[in-house]
Amino acid sequence: MSEKTITMPLAVNHISVDCVVIGFDGEKLSVLLVKRMGEEDGQVFHDMKLPGGLIYTDENLDDAARRVLRELTGIKTIDLLQFKAYGSKDRTKDKRDVHWLEHAIQMHVDRIVTIAYIALVRISRALLGTSGDNEICWVPIDEVRQLAFDHNIILRDAIEVVRRQAQTDPSYLFNLLPPKFTILQLRTLYERVYGKRQDVRNFQKKINQLDYVIALDEREQGVAHRAARLYRFDRKLFKRARR
Amino acid sequence: MSEKTITMPLAVNHISVDCVVIGFDGEKLSVLLVKRMGEEDGQVFHDMKLPGGLIYTDENLDDAARRVLRELTGIKTIDLLQFKAYGSKDRTKDKRDVHWLEHAIQMHVDRIVTIAYIALVRISRALLGTSGDNEICWVPIDEVRQLAFDHNIILRDAIEVVRRQAQTDPSYLFNLLPPKFTILQLRTLYERVYGKRQDVRNFQKKINQLDYVIALDEREQGVAHRAARLYRFDRKLFKRARR
Repeated sequence: MSEKTITMPLAVNHISVDCVVIGFDGEKLSVLLVKRMGEEDGQVFHDMKLPGGLIYTDENLDDAARRVLRELTGIKTIDLLQFKAYGSKDRTKDKRDVHWLEHAIQMHVDRIVTIAYIALVRISRALLGTSGDNEICWVPIDEVRQLAFDHNIILRDAIEVVRRQAQTDPSYLFNLLPPKFTILQLRTLYERVYGKRQDVRNFQKKINQLDYVIALDEREQGVAHRAARLYRFDRKLFKRARR
Repeated sequence: MSEKTITMPLAVNHISVDCVVIGFDGEKLSVLLVKRMGEEDGQVFHDMKLPGGLIYTDENLDDAARRVLRELTGIKTIDLLQFKAYGSKDRTKDKRDVHWLEHAIQMHVDRIVTIAYIALVRISRALLGTSGDNEICWVPIDEVRQLAFDHNIILRDAIEVVRRQAQTDPSYLFNLLPPKFTILQLRTLYERVYGKRQDVRNFQKKINQLDYVIALDEREQGVAHRAARLYRFDRKLFKRARR
């Protein structure tokens, strides 16, 4: 069949993965971003992007996403949820993005289809070093500015996916909490994810009804206010309750 | 930057869309498949694949999926839900698939990342003509055999997505029913989607509690058995109930 092979003027299709890593510090919901420096029209610019990268030729999509995160954050075991592919031509409408990428990969870029992933992590786990030339940081989601490519859209969609995911699987958000947490932390997390206040009493009542959120005989340590009771999420009981 | 551009031995990345179009005829859940004929080792073979195709260079992913379906089925307005990207190297492990595709597009193929979509349709709407060289047909889901590429995996995942989608949005499955339907049809649909029998009385009770499933003063026509009452789904009432 090789004698029939002809060269057609196809676009140079690059395929990348981008990861929306979301963390919660007890007060704010934040996203992990990579600082980016570029040059356009002789001017240096600084902005941010989601952690991501092109896939290697012999690499599966999920593996590529795991590699990107491992290289950037050192996190080795992480649950990544693939949630959407982005392939609009408008992804590369900002020439700064195209030039930056072409400079980085030393290749001409027509279209980049990116496969987007979500990970929820405990902020404490995701220790940030400098990783090569990349500087990464946690940015509270409501303070995120204009990101590279269509990363603001990807981030917005990711939050929507987290909401939906938490609705079908109530255990999902517990990935964001430390092993022991207060009801205030849990309530604050719900308020941040859903973007609306939760009534204190109703929330406490709702949690009390959940067999799998266990009140411990322990209280917070080293806090200025009155130490609150600690709770833990019991995954085994949760699974049993859902059967 | 063009003087820096170098050619790297990258894989030839093709990007395609594949559509899992699901229909229900009142008894069975079926999927729309395209018949495929190929030749391998001097032997002609026939099998089937999901409707799909490579994206054009100036085409967004969603547009490509809509075009593929329009070209194959004539369906112009259809709700397509993008649900997953498939990019495993194993997608092209069967050389029959690679050779068939290389023959069809007259290009060398390394990797094809495909973006998969779901559409639920009323079978009556999707009138099947022959469309060019492609012959398409409805195949009951439990009679689907070995498909091309990883299309069996994509189909299996799609059914799972339909189940989850129906859980978060109970209106979803009504897209599969005709405007007027019987409770038996609705119950059969649930049984097919979830793969388990529904208790007749409990199901009727459950449906009676739904404000948005309206009993009509009409009955089935031209049936051999006792004509059953017809119902309709009221989207406005559904939206109001969900607020």
